[in-house]
Amino acid sequence: MRTANQYFEDLKKMRSNVYIGGDRVSRDDSRLLPNINIIKTTFELAQHTDWEGLITARSSLTGKKINRFTHLPQNPLDLMQKQKMIRLTATRTGGCIQRCMGQDALCALSVATKEIDEKFGTGYHERFMNYIRDYQERDLAGACAQTDMKGDRSKRPFEQEDPDAYVHVVEKKSDGIVVSGVKISITMAAIADEIIVVPTRALTKHDKDFAVAFAIPADWDNIRLVTRPVYIREKKKFKSPFAEMGASESVIVFDNTFIPMERVFMCGEWEFGRRLALLFADSHRFSYTGCKPAVSDILCGATALIAEANDIEKAPHVREKLSEFIGVGELAYAAGIAAALYGERASSGTFCPNEMYANIGRRLMGENIYHEFNILTEIAGGLAVTLPFEDDFLAKETEQDLKKLMKRNPKLSYENSCHAWRFVEDLAASSMAVWYQIAGVHGGGSPIMETITLNINTDYEAKKDIAKYLAGINEELDQSKEIKTKPNQIK
Amino acid sequence: MRTANQYFEDLKKMRSNVYIGGDRVSRDDSRLLPNINIIKTTFELAQHTDWEGLITARSSLTGKKINRFTHLPQNPLDLMQKQKMIRLTATRTGGCIQRCMGQDALCALSVATKEIDEKFGTGYHERFMNYIRDYQERDLAGACAQTDMKGDRSKRPFEQEDPDAYVHVVEKKSDGIVVSGVKISITMAAIADEIIVVPTRALTKHDKDFAVAFAIPADWDNIRLVTRPVYIREKKKFKSPFAEMGASESVIVFDNTFIPMERVFMCGEWEFGRRLALLFADSHRFSYTGCKPAVSDILCGATALIAEANDIEKAPHVREKLSEFIGVGELAYAAGIAAALYGERASSGTFCPNEMYANIGRRLMGENIYHEFNILTEIAGGLAVTLPFEDDFLAKETEQDLKKLMKRNPKLSYENSCHAWRFVEDLAASSMAVWYQIAGVHGGGSPIMETITLNINTDYEAKKDIAKYLAGINEELDQSKEIKTKPNQIK
Amino acid sequence: MRTANQYFEDLKKMRSNVYIGGDRVSRDDSRLLPNINIIKTTFELAQHTDWEGLITARSSLTGKKINRFTHLPQNPLDLMQKQKMIRLTATRTGGCIQRCMGQDALCALSVATKEIDEKFGTGYHERFMNYIRDYQERDLAGACAQTDMKGDRSKRPFEQEDPDAYVHVVEKKSDGIVVSGVKISITMAAIADEIIVVPTRALTKHDKDFAVAFAIPADWDNIRLVTRPVYIREKKKFKSPFAEMGASESVIVFDNTFIPMERVFMCGEWEFGRRLALLFADSHRFSYTGCKPAVSDILCGATALIAEANDIEKAPHVREKLSEFIGVGELAYAAGIAAALYGERASSGTFCPNEMYANIGRRLMGENIYHEFNILTEIAGGLAVTLPFEDDFLAKETEQDLKKLMKRNPKLSYENSCHAWRFVEDLAASSMAVWYQIAGVHGGGSPIMETITLNINTDYEAKKDIAKYLAGINEELDQSKEIKTKPNQIK
Amino acid sequence: MRTANQYFEDLKKMRSNVYIGGDRVSRDDSRLLPNINIIKTTFELAQHTDWEGLITARSSLTGKKINRFTHLPQNPLDLMQKQKMIRLTATRTGGCIQRCMGQDALCALSVATKEIDEKFGTGYHERFMNYIRDYQERDLAGACAQTDMKGDRSKRPFEQEDPDAYVHVVEKKSDGIVVSGVKISITMAAIADEIIVVPTRALTKHDKDFAVAFAIPADWDNIRLVTRPVYIREKKKFKSPFAEMGASESVIVFDNTFIPMERVFMCGEWEFGRRLALLFADSHRFSYTGCKPAVSDILCGATALIAEANDIEKAPHVREKLSEFIGVGELAYAAGIAAALYGERASSGTFCPNEMYANIGRRLMGENIYHEFNILTEIAGGLAVTLPFEDDFLAKETEQDLKKLMKRNPKLSYENSCHAWRFVEDLAASSMAVWYQIAGVHGGGSPIMETITLNINTDYEAKKDIAKYLAGINEELDQSKEIKTKPNQIK
Repeated sequence: MRTANQYFEDLKKMRSNVYIGGDRVSRDDSRLLPNINIIKTTFELAQHTDWEGLITARSSLTGKKINRFTHLPQNPLDLMQKQKMIRLTATRTGGCIQRCMGQDALCALSVATKEIDEKFGTGYHERFMNYIRDYQERDLAGACAQTDMKGDRSKRPFEQEDPDAYVHVVEKKSDGIVVSGVKISITMAAIADEIIVVPTRALTKHDKDFAVAFAIPADWDNIRLVTRPVYIREKKKFKSPFAEMGASESVIVFDNTFIPMERVFMCGEWEFGRRLALLFADSHRFSYTGCKPAVSDILCGATALIAEANDIEKAPHVREKLSEFIGVGELAYAAGIAAALYGERASSGTFCPNEMYANIGRRLMGENIYHEFNILTEIAGGLAVTLPFEDDFLAKETEQDLKKLMKRNPKLSYENSCHAWRFVEDLAASSMAVWYQIAGVHGGGSPIMETITLNINTDYEAKKDIAKYLAGINEELDQSKEIKTKPNQIK
Repeated sequence: MRTANQYFEDLKKMRSNVYIGGDRVSRDDSRLLPNINIIKTTFELAQHTDWEGLITARSSLTGKKINRFTHLPQNPLDLMQKQKMIRLTATRTGGCIQRCMGQDALCALSVATKEIDEKFGTGYHERFMNYIRDYQERDLAGACAQTDMKGDRSKRPFEQEDPDAYVHVVEKKSDGIVVSGVKISITMAAIADEIIVVPTRALTKHDKDFAVAFAIPADWDNIRLVTRPVYIREKKKFKSPFAEMGASESVIVFDNTFIPMERVFMCGEWEFGRRLALLFADSHRFSYTGCKPAVSDILCGATALIAEANDIEKAPHVREKLSEFIGVGELAYAAGIAAALYGERASSGTFCPNEMYANIGRRLMGENIYHEFNILTEIAGGLAVTLPFEDDFLAKETEQDLKKLMKRNPKLSYENSCHAWRFVEDLAASSMAVWYQIAGVHGGGSPIMETITLNINTDYEAKKDIAKYLAGINEELDQSKEIKTKPNQIK
Repeated sequence: MRTANQYFEDLKKMRSNVYIGGDRVSRDDSRLLPNINIIKTTFELAQHTDWEGLITARSSLTGKKINRFTHLPQNPLDLMQKQKMIRLTATRTGGCIQRCMGQDALCALSVATKEIDEKFGTGYHERFMNYIRDYQERDLAGACAQTDMKGDRSKRPFEQEDPDAYVHVVEKKSDGIVVSGVKISITMAAIADEIIVVPTRALTKHDKDFAVAFAIPADWDNIRLVTRPVYIREKKKFKSPFAEMGASESVIVFDNTFIPMERVFMCGEWEFGRRLALLFADSHRFSYTGCKPAVSDILCGATALIAEANDIEKAPHVREKLSEFIGVGELAYAAGIAAALYGERASSGTFCPNEMYANIGRRLMGENIYHEFNILTEIAGGLAVTLPFEDDFLAKETEQDLKKLMKRNPKLSYENSCHAWRFVEDLAASSMAVWYQIAGVHGGGSPIMETITLNINTDYEAKKDIAKYLAGINEELDQSKEIKTKPNQIK
Repeated sequence: MRTANQYFEDLKKMRSNVYIGGDRVSRDDSRLLPNINIIKTTFELAQHTDWEGLITARSSLTGKKINRFTHLPQNPLDLMQKQKMIRLTATRTGGCIQRCMGQDALCALSVATKEIDEKFGTGYHERFMNYIRDYQERDLAGACAQTDMKGDRSKRPFEQEDPDAYVHVVEKKSDGIVVSGVKISITMAAIADEIIVVPTRALTKHDKDFAVAFAIPADWDNIRLVTRPVYIREKKKFKSPFAEMGASESVIVFDNTFIPMERVFMCGEWEFGRRLALLFADSHRFSYTGCKPAVSDILCGATALIAEANDIEKAPHVREKLSEFIGVGELAYAAGIAAALYGERASSGTFCPNEMYANIGRRLMGENIYHEFNILTEIAGGLAVTLPFEDDFLAKETEQDLKKLMKRNPKLSYENSCHAWRFVEDLAASSMAVWYQIAGVHGGGSPIMETITLNINTDYEAKKDIAKYLAGINEELDQSKEIKTKPNQIK
C-alpha cells in the first residue's frame, strides 16, 4: 500500500493538463492541496494499526492485504465494513472522503463486464480483472466520470446537435478506440491517478456509440481538466484539520482521446447502458449511507460544541434539536445496513447492495441536508457569519476588544473558543458550507433520482394486493413468496 | 399450539369481569369479537405451512415447535424473524397484531429477573422460567399492563395522594402478595388469557412498594376491566377482513388482588424499576419496526388502490406520494434490522434489540402517521367521508343512483369499486382511523419518549470530540473503540 | 330575519325527499338534528345585540338589515367582516358554519350573470337580482351544489358515457328547463332551504349543455338526496355544545327536474364555465380564511385545556406547540385580510377577494390540518382514544374506579375533567374528527387545486425579470406598474 | 434629499475608525463598496419619478418631501407603503436593503421617548424630535446597534464579570454621558452616517446603567468598528448588479465614548428596557415582511430562470416547487398587511405594526429560508457549485470547451446562459448565500424569539375559553369584546 507521500509524489509527476482560473497548473498547485489532503487521509489511516481490517481488506483476487478503497466487496460484512470505513474516515476530513467514488465504479464494472460477456460472449471481464489487479497492487485512487454535459435534456444522446454532449466512440482501431465528449461535475478528478468512465443513462440502439466504458490515467494525452477547487481561508493561528480539507470538481474534456484496448470495458453494448449506470449509482448511493451519517455526526458535534460555547447545551430545545441529527444520520446508516444484509451477489462474485435500501437511505440525507445546516445555524446564532476575520483577532489594535467577545462560557478557554467559532464559521458560513449543501442534495444522485429508482423497483401491485385483501376484493393474500426471503448471512 | 377456536373457547370459559358501556359482559360480547379476530389470526396462521418457521419457532427452553409470539429471541435472526412476522401478520389484520405486547413483556422479564437475581441473590428467574415454559406449552396470549393511572404527574408514586395511582404491593404473605392500583390504556386486556404487569417508570427507594411485576389470568379474583372496544360498522354486503377487525383498551383495576408467589417476578427491587420499564419499552418499540411498516404498506396499498379507482394512478404527483410511504415504512424497517444486528445478548440468553435503532425506528413512524393518513386523504378525495351508507347502496329507491357514482374507472367492476371505497372509508374516515392515528403516535411510547431515550443513550461527547478534532481543539481523535465494534452474526 | 325556530319549522314542512341508511326520512330525523344545530346558530346569533353589524349587514339592494350570510359584499370591509363573522360563529359550532357556502354561490352568480349579460346581451342578472332580493327578504339558507359525480376523470363532460356524470340541460321549454345529473359531497343540502347549482369546471363548446346554473328549493319535484349525516355519540350527563353539532353530505340526484325560467342563471354559455366555477371557488376559499383559523383556535384551545388537565401547561414543548396553531391560523387569517384589501369590485358591484391571497390562505390550512390534529394528540396522550364510555362513568360498579382516573390536575374538578376529556375524545377521536380532517383537506378545494390556481395566476415571468435584472441579463427592471398598485380603502 | 454620490462623498470624509482583516481602513475600502452599493440604491431610486410616493413621503414633522427611509409612519397606509418600498427596493439589491434598520430604531425611539416622558416627566421626546428633524433634513442613513456582546448568557447585565458585555453608562456629566461596551453583529455600521443605540433586553432595577439609548456619528471619538465585509468574486465579463452588492457586519466598541446630552434618549429608565427593545424588534420584524418576500421573489425568479436554462421549466414538479415560494413569500407579505391594518397609534403619533402579525410573518420566513435555498438547488442541479471559474470561460485554451457546456436550452444565448449560471452560483453557492441563509434565520430576531414574543402576546386563556364553551364547561362564551375590534382605516 502506498503512503500518503508516495501518492503525492506520483501526482507531482503527472503531465500538467489541469486548468484553474485561466491558468494551466501542475497538480501541486496550492488550490488543489486541500483536496489532496482528503485523499491523503485514506493512505495515512491505512498505515495505522487501529484501522487494520477496516480500512484494509484481504483482496478477493490475490489474498493480499490491500486498501479497502480498492476492494471488491464479496459479502454483506464487506459492505458493512465499507460503510463503516467511509463513515469514520469522513469524520476526519469533514464529511466527504471521495475515494469511494472510484471503488464504486470498479464494483459496477466488475459486475457489468461479466454480465456483458455472458450475454454477448465478449471478453471484457478478464480484461477488467487484469486492470483491477494492477489497481489494487499499485493502490490507485480513481475518479469515476459519469455525468455527461448532456446538452439539450429533452433529446437522447444520438439526437444531440453536438455529439460531445455525451462521451462517445469516434473511431475504433485494432489496438484501441478513440473517444470524444465532455464529462462535468467530476469530483477529485484533478487529483486522481485514474479516471474511470461509465455511461450516465439508459441507451437505445441508436446510441450504440455512447455505450462506452474505460479507465485511463488522468493526465493521458488529449484529456483536459477545467477544475474548480473549493477550500477555506487559510488560518494563521487557529489552524484546524477541517480548514485544511477541500474539494475540487472538474469538467473533463476528451478530445479525440485514444484508449488502449486493454482499458476498454464496454464498447457498443447499449443494452447495458442503464444497467451499468445504475450499478454505479446504487453502489455510490450505498457509500452515501456511510458518509452522510458522518456529515450528521459532524454537524451534530458542531452544534453541541457551539451550544457549549454559548452555554446553552442543556436547554431542552437544544437537546431536542441534537436528537434530530441522530434520527436522520442513524436512519440512513440503518438503511445501509439493511442494504448490505438484503444485497445480492452478482455472477462475478461482487456483492451489491440492495437497491431499495441504498436509495431510501441516500434520499433521506438529500432531503435533510439543508435542514441540518438550519439546526446548526439556529443554535449557533448570527455570530457564525458576523465574526471578524482572524487577522483582526491577531492585530494589536483590535485583539483586546475581540478577546472579550470570545468570553461566553467561562469554562471555555479563549483559544478553544476561537477554534470553536472559527470552525462553525468554516462549516456553516463558508464556500465549503454551500459545497456540502449542494453536494448533499445532488452528489451521487438527487432525491428525485432516488424517488424514480424507488418507484421503478417497488412492487406497488403487491401493496395493492394487501389493500385488496383487506378490502375483501381478493379472497386470499399470497405471502408465501415474501415469507421465504431471508437476509443474507454475515460472514 | 392452540387453534383459533381453542383460544376462543378458552376465552368464553373466563369469569365475567369485563365492563363495557355500563354493563358487565362475557368475553364473547359482540363488541369484543373484532378484537378477538385479530388475536385469532395469530393462531390461524401458525397452522399454515407457508408460515412455518416464521410464525413458529423452536423453543429455546424445550426445543419444541411453538408459536413465535411466545418465543424468547436468542440471536439477531430471531429478532429479524419476529420483526418480519409482525409486519406480515399485521398486514392481515389492518396494521396491529397486538399479541407482540405480551411477548415483549416476557422478554423483558426474562432478562430482568436474571439480573435482579445476580444482584440480590433472589430467585425470580427460575420462577419466571417455569412460568414461561407453561406459557409456551399452553400457547397463551398475554397483555402487558405497563401504563399506570399516574395521578398528579409532577409527583413520584410514593408522593401521590391516592396510592392507587400506581399499582403497588399492599400486603406480603407467605404464599403471595396483595396488590392494588389502576393500569390504563391496556390494549387487548379484555381478550387476553393473561395480564403481565410491569412498572412504568424509574423508581426511588421511597417507591419500594411500587416495584412490582407479576403475571396473572385476566379473570382473576379482584380484577375488573373497564373496556372501550373500537370497531367498524358491520357490513351487510360489501364485507371485508378489515371491517371485521378491531381493538379494545381497558382500564384494569386491581382491588386488593392476591398474586400467588410463583407468579411474582419483582417485589421491592426499586433499583430495577427503570431497567425493567425500558426493557419492555425497547423490545416493544422494536416490535413497532415490524407493525408500523405494515401500516405504511396498507396505507400505501389503499392509496394506490383508490388512485386506480379514481383513474389517476399514473399521475406524477401520485407516484411521488406513493414513494413517501416506502421511504417512511422501509426506513423504520431498516432501523429494526440494524437494531437486531447491533443488539445485545443479556445474561439470561435473551437477545435484546439495540436501543438506539429501536427508538429511532419507532419515532420515525410516530412522527409520520398523521402525514401518511394525509396522503391517503389527498389522493382519495372527499368521497372517503361523504360516501352514502351501505344501506343506501342496497335500497331499491337509491341503488341505481349510487351505482352511477361508483363508475369512475371503467376497468373496475361495481362490486370492486364498492369494496375499495368502503375500505378507504373504514381506513381513513372511521373510528378505526382515529384509533390508528393516536395509537400510531402513542402506542409503545410517543415520539417525545423516544427522543428522551435517544438523548440518554447518545454519546454527544463523542460527537463533540469529532467536532473538536476538526476544529483543531484536540490533536487526536480516538476512534479505535468504535472501529472495533462489529455487528452480530446472523445464525 | 328568521328565528332559529322559524327556520326549523320551515324545514319540517318540506317534502320528504331525503334518504339515509336505506330509509326515506323527514328533515327532523334525529340524525339530521346535529347539522340543523349548526345552521340554527347563524339565526340565533343574528338576534343578539353583541353581534349587531357583524352577523347582520345593511342590504346593498334594499338598505334593510339582513343576516350577513345573505349579503353581497360591496367593499373590503364587508369582506373582512364576513371573514370575522365566519371565524367567530365557527368557534361556536366546532369549526364549520356551513351557511357561507350558499352566500359564496350568490356572490359568484351576482358577478357572472352581469358579465354574461354584458357579453351576450342576455337577461340573467336582473333575474338573479330578483332572486336574491327574495332570498335576503326570506332569510334563506342555501347549499351550493358544485361538485359533479364526474365519471371518468380523463374525459370531458360531453365525452362521458353516462351524461349524468355532470348536471346538464335535457330539454329547454318556454317557461323553464329540464335538467338531469348527479352532484356529490354537498354539505348541508339535506337541511338547506335552497340548492344553488353552479358548474364545477372549465367547459368547451361541446359542453354547452353542461353550462347551467340555477337555484331551486331543496325539496323540489324530481330531486332526491342520499345523505350521510355525521354526528357524535349523544351524552347523557356530560353534555356539551360540540357534541350536539354535526354535518351531513348529500348525493343530489336531478332526475329530469324542471327548473322554472326565473330561477335559471346560466344556460349554454360555456365560455363562462371556468369563470363561474372559479368565482365560487375563490369566494369560498376566502370564507375558509375565516373558518380555518377557527378550527385552529379550537384545536389550540383544546390542546391548552388538556395540557392543563394533564398539568403540563407550562412545559416548554407545550408552549412551543401551542404557538404553531397561532402561526398557522393567523397566517391564514392574514391572507384573508390581504385578499380583502387587494380584492376587486366586479361590474355588478360585488366585491371579490384577491384570488392569490384567498388561495394561499386556504392552501396553508389544507396542508396543516392533519398536523394540527397531531399536535393535539401529542399533548393529550393516548387517553383520548382509550377513555371508557360515558356509561361506565355513570354505572355504579365502575363509577368509583373511573373517578380516580380523572384526578390528574388537582385544580380541575371531576366534572370539568370529564367534560374536558370527553371533548378531546369527540374532537380528536370520533367520526367528527375524521370529518374535520378530510374536510380540512378537501372542502372548498384541495391544496392541489389551490396550487394550480396559484400557478395560473402568478406572473412567473415577472419573477424571472427580477432574476434577470440581478443576473445582468436585462439592463433595467420596470417596476413602475407594481409600484402603482395600492390596496383598496376600507370604508 | 441626498444623491447617492453625496452620501458616498460624506462617507469618505469620515474619520478612519474601521478595522478589516487587521488593518485600519477608510470607508472607501474596496471591500466596503458592495455594501455601500446597497445603501446607494436607496438614494438613487428616490430621485426616480416612478418611485415617487413610495420611496419618498411627506414628513409628518415638516410636510417636506423626504426619503421614506427617514419617515415616521403615521397610519396603516404608511406602514403598507414602507413594506412595499422595502420589498421592491430589496429586489434591486438581492434581498436586503439595510437602511430600514435605522428607520425602525427611529420609530421605536419616537414612541419610547414620549412614553418615558409621560411616566417620568423627562424631556427626551423633544430632544429626539429635534434629532429626527435634522436626520430627515440631512437624509441620513443610520445603523441600529442593538445586540450586545452579552458575555455569560445565564447572567443579567449587572451580574456580568466584564461590564462591557452590555453597553452602559460609565459617567454622567452636565453636557452628556460617557458610555462603554461592545455591540456585535451590527449590519451596515461601517458605512452608516449614524449609529443609533438601543437596549437589547428587559432590564431590572439593578441594570439601571444599562438602560441607555442614544445616536451618534459612526466615526465619533472613542468608537472602533471591527468589520467583516461579505461580497462576491468580482466579475470581469459577466458583470451583474447582484455581484456588486454586499454586506458588512461590525463589532462596535464603545470605549469611554462621550455622548452629548442632546443625543441621549434614555438614561437610567430601566423600566422601559423591554419596551424599547421590543418596539425596535417588532418594527424591524415588520420590515422583514417586506424584504423576506423579496428574497422569495428572487429565489423564485432564479429557480424559474435556471429551470429555463435547464429546459425543464414546464415540468410539473418544477411548477409545484415554484408555487412554494409564492406560498411562503405572500403569506409573510399578507402578515405584514394584517400587521399594518391592525396596528396601533402610539401616544407620539407614530403608527406601530401589530405585534402578533409582525412576528408570525417574520417567523415564517426564518423557518423557511434554508428550505427555499434547497428548492433552488434542487432545480439548478450540481452545476451551481461545480461551474468553472469565470477566468476559464475567458481563457483561450478552455473557452471553446466551456462554451459547449452552456448550450442546454437552445433558446438561451451563450451570454445569457453564462449570466444565468453565474448568478445562480453567486446566489446559492457563494459567501453571499450563507450570509442570506444565516441572516434569514437570525436577522431581526430568530424564530425562537418570535415564538417567545407570540406566546407572551397570545391570550391562550381566550382560546381555552372557546374549548371550554364547546366542552360544556362554561355556559356562555363572551365574544363581544372581540367582535368590536375592527381594522384601522387606510388613509
